[in-house]
Amino acid sequence: MSNETHDTVFIGKKPLMAYVTSALIQLANVPSVNIKARGLSIGRAVDVAQIIARKTENAGYTIGEIKIDSELLESQDGRSRNVSTIEIEIKRSTS
Amino acid sequence: MSNETHDTVFIGKKPLMAYVTSALIQLANVPSVNIKARGLSIGRAVDVAQIIARKTENAGYTIGEIKIDSELLESQDGRSRNVSTIEIEIKRSTS
Repeated sequence: MSNETHDTVFIGKKPLMAYVTSALIQLANVPSVNIKARGLSIGRAVDVAQIIARKTENAGYTIGEIKIDSELLESQDGRSRNVSTIEIEIKRSTS
Repeated sequence: MSNETHDTVFIGKKPLMAYVTSALIQLANVPSVNIKARGLSIGRAVDVAQIIARKTENAGYTIGEIKIDSELLESQDGRSRNVSTIEIEIKRSTS
């Protein structure tokens, strides 16, 4: 086990609720989790964050800092192109 | 003309550069612009913000506050469902 306080959930092609569950399990152990995605998965990362924030409204976790960036990836034809990324922090409410 | 200092670019199905141009034109007149999108267009909103930030790196505009939320929309079958939204502020660099 690491002593980092930030764990990361990387959004891919699984059903949304798989990532919601994974983030909630991590949040039981650490105070905040980062949800990361790039390219076409960015919208799904926002969905996951919103589902967690909405379903735990009273309990509760809230959305923290949101960062966007871009990464240079090499595509299959050998050319490099920029892909947008997002990182959404989910943390325990301090109220 | 309004005296608001925040203008908005709503991301839809046009080519990305149409929104980049539209945002840059608004930024010539106001200090900050919000780029808004929902659902499947969220990734494209991040792309537009990143293109502006990257291409004007020295000039320059930077990414400000980013907010995510969800809206209740009625789908065609009459049921209501939540759609995620994003709002990305682009503003003049203060450096």
